[in-house]
Amino acid sequence: MIGGGRGAFIGAVHRMAAALDGQIELVCGAFSSDEEKSRMSGADLFLPADRCYGNYTEMIQKESKLSPDLRMDFVSIVTPNHMHFGPAMLALENGFHVVCDKPMCLTLDEAKLLRKKVESTNLIFALTHTYTSYPMVKQAKQMIAHGEIGKVRRIVVEYPQGWLSTPLEKANQKQAAWRTDPTRSGAAGAMGDIGTHAENLAEYVTGLQIDELCADLHTHIAGRKLDDDGSVLLRMNNGARGVLYASQVSAGEENNLRIRVYGEKGGLDWSQMEPNSLIVRWLDQPMQVYRTGVGTLYPETVAHTRIPAGHPEGYLEAFANIYRNVAYCIQARLLNTEVDKVYTDFPTVHDGVKGMAFIDAVVMSGKQDEVKWTRIE
Amino acid sequence: MIGGGRGAFIGAVHRMAAALDGQIELVCGAFSSDEEKSRMSGADLFLPADRCYGNYTEMIQKESKLSPDLRMDFVSIVTPNHMHFGPAMLALENGFHVVCDKPMCLTLDEAKLLRKKVESTNLIFALTHTYTSYPMVKQAKQMIAHGEIGKVRRIVVEYPQGWLSTPLEKANQKQAAWRTDPTRSGAAGAMGDIGTHAENLAEYVTGLQIDELCADLHTHIAGRKLDDDGSVLLRMNNGARGVLYASQVSAGEENNLRIRVYGEKGGLDWSQMEPNSLIVRWLDQPMQVYRTGVGTLYPETVAHTRIPAGHPEGYLEAFANIYRNVAYCIQARLLNTEVDKVYTDFPTVHDGVKGMAFIDAVVMSGKQDEVKWTRIE
Amino acid sequence: MIGGGRGAFIGAVHRMAAALDGQIELVCGAFSSDEEKSRMSGADLFLPADRCYGNYTEMIQKESKLSPDLRMDFVSIVTPNHMHFGPAMLALENGFHVVCDKPMCLTLDEAKLLRKKVESTNLIFALTHTYTSYPMVKQAKQMIAHGEIGKVRRIVVEYPQGWLSTPLEKANQKQAAWRTDPTRSGAAGAMGDIGTHAENLAEYVTGLQIDELCADLHTHIAGRKLDDDGSVLLRMNNGARGVLYASQVSAGEENNLRIRVYGEKGGLDWSQMEPNSLIVRWLDQPMQVYRTGVGTLYPETVAHTRIPAGHPEGYLEAFANIYRNVAYCIQARLLNTEVDKVYTDFPTVHDGVKGMAFIDAVVMSGKQDEVKWTRIE
Amino acid sequence: MIGGGRGAFIGAVHRMAAALDGQIELVCGAFSSDEEKSRMSGADLFLPADRCYGNYTEMIQKESKLSPDLRMDFVSIVTPNHMHFGPAMLALENGFHVVCDKPMCLTLDEAKLLRKKVESTNLIFALTHTYTSYPMVKQAKQMIAHGEIGKVRRIVVEYPQGWLSTPLEKANQKQAAWRTDPTRSGAAGAMGDIGTHAENLAEYVTGLQIDELCADLHTHIAGRKLDDDGSVLLRMNNGARGVLYASQVSAGEENNLRIRVYGEKGGLDWSQMEPNSLIVRWLDQPMQVYRTGVGTLYPETVAHTRIPAGHPEGYLEAFANIYRNVAYCIQARLLNTEVDKVYTDFPTVHDGVKGMAFIDAVVMSGKQDEVKWTRIE
Repeated sequence: MIGGGRGAFIGAVHRMAAALDGQIELVCGAFSSDEEKSRMSGADLFLPADRCYGNYTEMIQKESKLSPDLRMDFVSIVTPNHMHFGPAMLALENGFHVVCDKPMCLTLDEAKLLRKKVESTNLIFALTHTYTSYPMVKQAKQMIAHGEIGKVRRIVVEYPQGWLSTPLEKANQKQAAWRTDPTRSGAAGAMGDIGTHAENLAEYVTGLQIDELCADLHTHIAGRKLDDDGSVLLRMNNGARGVLYASQVSAGEENNLRIRVYGEKGGLDWSQMEPNSLIVRWLDQPMQVYRTGVGTLYPETVAHTRIPAGHPEGYLEAFANIYRNVAYCIQARLLNTEVDKVYTDFPTVHDGVKGMAFIDAVVMSGKQDEVKWTRIE
Repeated sequence: MIGGGRGAFIGAVHRMAAALDGQIELVCGAFSSDEEKSRMSGADLFLPADRCYGNYTEMIQKESKLSPDLRMDFVSIVTPNHMHFGPAMLALENGFHVVCDKPMCLTLDEAKLLRKKVESTNLIFALTHTYTSYPMVKQAKQMIAHGEIGKVRRIVVEYPQGWLSTPLEKANQKQAAWRTDPTRSGAAGAMGDIGTHAENLAEYVTGLQIDELCADLHTHIAGRKLDDDGSVLLRMNNGARGVLYASQVSAGEENNLRIRVYGEKGGLDWSQMEPNSLIVRWLDQPMQVYRTGVGTLYPETVAHTRIPAGHPEGYLEAFANIYRNVAYCIQARLLNTEVDKVYTDFPTVHDGVKGMAFIDAVVMSGKQDEVKWTRIE
Repeated sequence: MIGGGRGAFIGAVHRMAAALDGQIELVCGAFSSDEEKSRMSGADLFLPADRCYGNYTEMIQKESKLSPDLRMDFVSIVTPNHMHFGPAMLALENGFHVVCDKPMCLTLDEAKLLRKKVESTNLIFALTHTYTSYPMVKQAKQMIAHGEIGKVRRIVVEYPQGWLSTPLEKANQKQAAWRTDPTRSGAAGAMGDIGTHAENLAEYVTGLQIDELCADLHTHIAGRKLDDDGSVLLRMNNGARGVLYASQVSAGEENNLRIRVYGEKGGLDWSQMEPNSLIVRWLDQPMQVYRTGVGTLYPETVAHTRIPAGHPEGYLEAFANIYRNVAYCIQARLLNTEVDKVYTDFPTVHDGVKGMAFIDAVVMSGKQDEVKWTRIE
Repeated sequence: MIGGGRGAFIGAVHRMAAALDGQIELVCGAFSSDEEKSRMSGADLFLPADRCYGNYTEMIQKESKLSPDLRMDFVSIVTPNHMHFGPAMLALENGFHVVCDKPMCLTLDEAKLLRKKVESTNLIFALTHTYTSYPMVKQAKQMIAHGEIGKVRRIVVEYPQGWLSTPLEKANQKQAAWRTDPTRSGAAGAMGDIGTHAENLAEYVTGLQIDELCADLHTHIAGRKLDDDGSVLLRMNNGARGVLYASQVSAGEENNLRIRVYGEKGGLDWSQMEPNSLIVRWLDQPMQVYRTGVGTLYPETVAHTRIPAGHPEGYLEAFANIYRNVAYCIQARLLNTEVDKVYTDFPTVHDGVKGMAFIDAVVMSGKQDEVKWTRIE
């Protein structure tokens, strides 16, 4: 693991998600750029001192020299955005598979380099766009892919949060500080941090691509350097229209990611606040609520559900679905076996490139008040 | 009443709404342009034959010649859009107050003429933008006006319906036929029929005006002549940003009008599907759900609630709030008394002009793919 | 109308409900036992002075002497419980149909006398158990009657309110005062006021009868003379089991009447807080939410819905369904025609007798800690 | 781990819950009474063959002979009910702490023996009444303990499931088979399996004890040997009244455990279907919804929440809270340190005894139609 030392935020989430299914064991880490802190963080996690490294370069180099049965199988990168590209590239160059937090990197150019490297090495690269790994999101994707709601016409995707409603970055709040700093976060604020989740969710569920977009981004907090709120009109590659709204100043909202997709015959409605339900509206039948405990679900849905039917699952289980699938895929490579297709689905470097292209387009569109539509590469 | 004969849709709603509070009695009508049908419709409603007129001109002329204690006090216009302007103008010219269905007329020019006439005659003109008369919408307006959520930053307003997901107008469905016909409905389809409700709700609740907008309108049903789906970016006159989404092809949706408004300190969330609740989110306190049965509400809210606390009220009660307030205002003029301020609030000719200006701007913006922002007059 | 003068509570509700459909006109009243107050109340309602009577005896006698086309067609009784029996009996004796608030009277003996009188006069007697007139309650009844969920096994019906959580009756609150006074309310408090609604709902929806019950009633507020909270085990005549809970000290609750019925194949779930939805759970299919705007409903449901599909209806509309059906039935008698069967459904004197039998049994059971089961006659 | 081999149900849940926080490592197991199956199950879990035992006696004996740093620290018992007492007693006798699935054993006598043994050995004994470890249940308990809703008056607790609506036990469904078999499940069916969860939740949240109860149990499925549905009237030791309903034939229900508690000043409402929300109703203030992402919660709540505020947590996290707290308590004993009080809260042998006493009383009450109230020891 790279990053995630004492005081970090998302590192512990990655560790819990990786541990959940008993398929992955944390064996080493460069938990902090402060060598002492890295060692202490590793000790907290019951790691031996010689596997706690002072930085990621040291870790990757030393681990690559260990015997295959001892050395780590893959690297998990849980640092702020500006520290994704370097470690990811180095890990790939040294033959390690990678799990990387999102957005994938700082620029679209970096993203393309990573994609090229992944393609040339044929290594596994997973991006933790966690939300698309909820069972009911898998169900929504399959229902649309199987034509249950007909051709998609309309998408409404939104991700309101409220935690940046005040200038928290000035109060030394670590998460707020780097997320509003262009040098660490990239060209976009809310649109990069959570807008990309919305974009990823919309494209994943519908199987469509955003062709062009028109954005209105705004910074409501005086002195903040990046957007904290925005709306985007979307035109999809099949002619469907959409709207995407992401905000970190929607006071009082937690993580209210929600997607609605309407087709010719019906509509799907999923919200992260109640992730175990998928609302299905029909043109001429009563609304249904799909849940894991009752009725027949697609195999892809069932494969990403792990507890007694009808009990609620949450964010960690969705996160763990990515790690578990990555573990299965790595095991299959090690054992030269095949993985069941239902376990091969997780966000990849291609999703990462799309996310960076979305950020580029949305920021460009947001800056200009004249040009209406901006194409996504 | 003008319109609302046998087979009509919204006329019966107007009659129930007008009757509810025992303040208004239906005394005459031109229920249809077919004289025979008008008479039969009137008979259904227990009206004497001599007060059932063959057309609105006849009705207004004959009624105006009756003695003041016999003749109607105001006219209710419940015809399709293209039949609003004529009767409204004639009624005003003959000294009758007017209640008119929305949108107010076919063009912005007509709207301005009506406004001028209302101003010069000083008669009462009410527009049935029903949704802003729900008690909890009144509560939301007052909470914002009293600064409870601070300066407004973000608006999300939406009105998805699904009933035009198929080419219903080709199947001789009367409502679908005139609503998709530019000569009877006006320049906009979904944006005129329900988008104006969303616009009215957003401006009413926030007390703000839309400065400029950027729209993407679309017609999903082949052969349909007007938009059936659209999204609009909004910039409000205080700098707040918003998004408005209205659609009649959101398959499976009923009348899911919903508004969310976020300010510096919290956010309000109201939905017509559960109109008796107002969700209030706070930056640093648990979410609240305001209802009529518990807690303290603004006098404006209480004045528009009429049944035992905690019992659900619906669309008809909201509709009746407009009629009841109009009745109180007319009574006050007749008796030369004052109406309590809480009963003077209903949509007026000014809301009607704003609605037509919104339609104009949104249609213009929707037509051009180059210009990003269109100002509203 | 008998009762419902200035300062009364439920009278205005009855008047609005009666007016809604334009089938009923208020023509006279004995609004108060105070003659002056009765006259003033009538004047508020635009009634002529000679139709405002000083007491119900006067009203019934004088009205019965008017010519049939002038005199009232039926009497509406909206007084406290102890003032139901007298006026109802007198009205029936004088040939007037009756609409009476619930519970029907003070004792089971009175109830049986009324039933006998209704049967011998063949007059219409309606009891305003309002909740069973919601469209979605009609739908639930029909679904069970048509076997959609199979044989009923389990009922859960509950009616929590919180408004009597404090000794409001000592603070001169008029509603609290008579409802907690055995001489005006009868043998039961919460169980009479709202428990009977729950009982009526359960028997109406399932078509079953309560065979025997076991109650635990309690008075939480010191000095209160009647029960304010209770739970009841139910055994139905088909072997189904149930539980009924009614409380007026469930602090914070409004009027949260809810019923769940489970059969062999599925379960129904309806709540007055969201009366426009009927949740239908299936053994092996996703949950459905029936609403008036989408899908196919039973004719009985459609007949009790009156506004544009998908708009919320509330308590007044349910109340009006009783009045409208009564009006249709009276009209049919006057015109010697047939009423469509779907409009003949409203609570009758038989429901009133059952309600009083329920009160008797529940109070008896609640008083004894030894005998477990009490049969309902 | 004892039990939980291939094909088992709850064993995998225990393993995930134990792994989540990185504090517990599975080191050995007797996963099946079939030695070969136990070995294969252990191999699936990456355990060395010599730590996979053929039965629990062998495991406990051999592990107790290993050096303290190698041998297991505690035993997890995940077998059907009839296989709890033996292994638990043997583990305690050999000095191992115990985590045991619920209900604790087959009879109240067994339960008391276990309690005596736990008291004499001073070992840790945790019972996986999972539901009381949800963060919002902790919050509810603290709110009541701190007097926020005043003296408790009324409890409504319910646990409907629908999965036994058909005679699944005759179709060789393993879970159904043992749960409906008195020799493996004990004296109660639904009341033992899920009724005890409801009982535990009610007593945990309120801090009260059930004094006496009155039950109506029923078996709806012909040929089934144990109750599959029942309602219970409750009288608590402070005078509060309650009703408990548990059913496995409530067709279409998943695991709809819900508790409502009303006090003098307000009411709490928590449901496992949306476990991240706690609805708080107030006598004279709008309803609140407490969630982990907004507002201030008790330290006990925060200590049992582990992911980014506002993301949903589920059943596994609640389950893991028990294991994590047990791990912290065992670590503290090993290191001779103190555990923060907020981590010492998990269900113990005393909850187990109370659960068995509840089962005894409820079954006895259910069997007799004469005696109304049965006291709980």
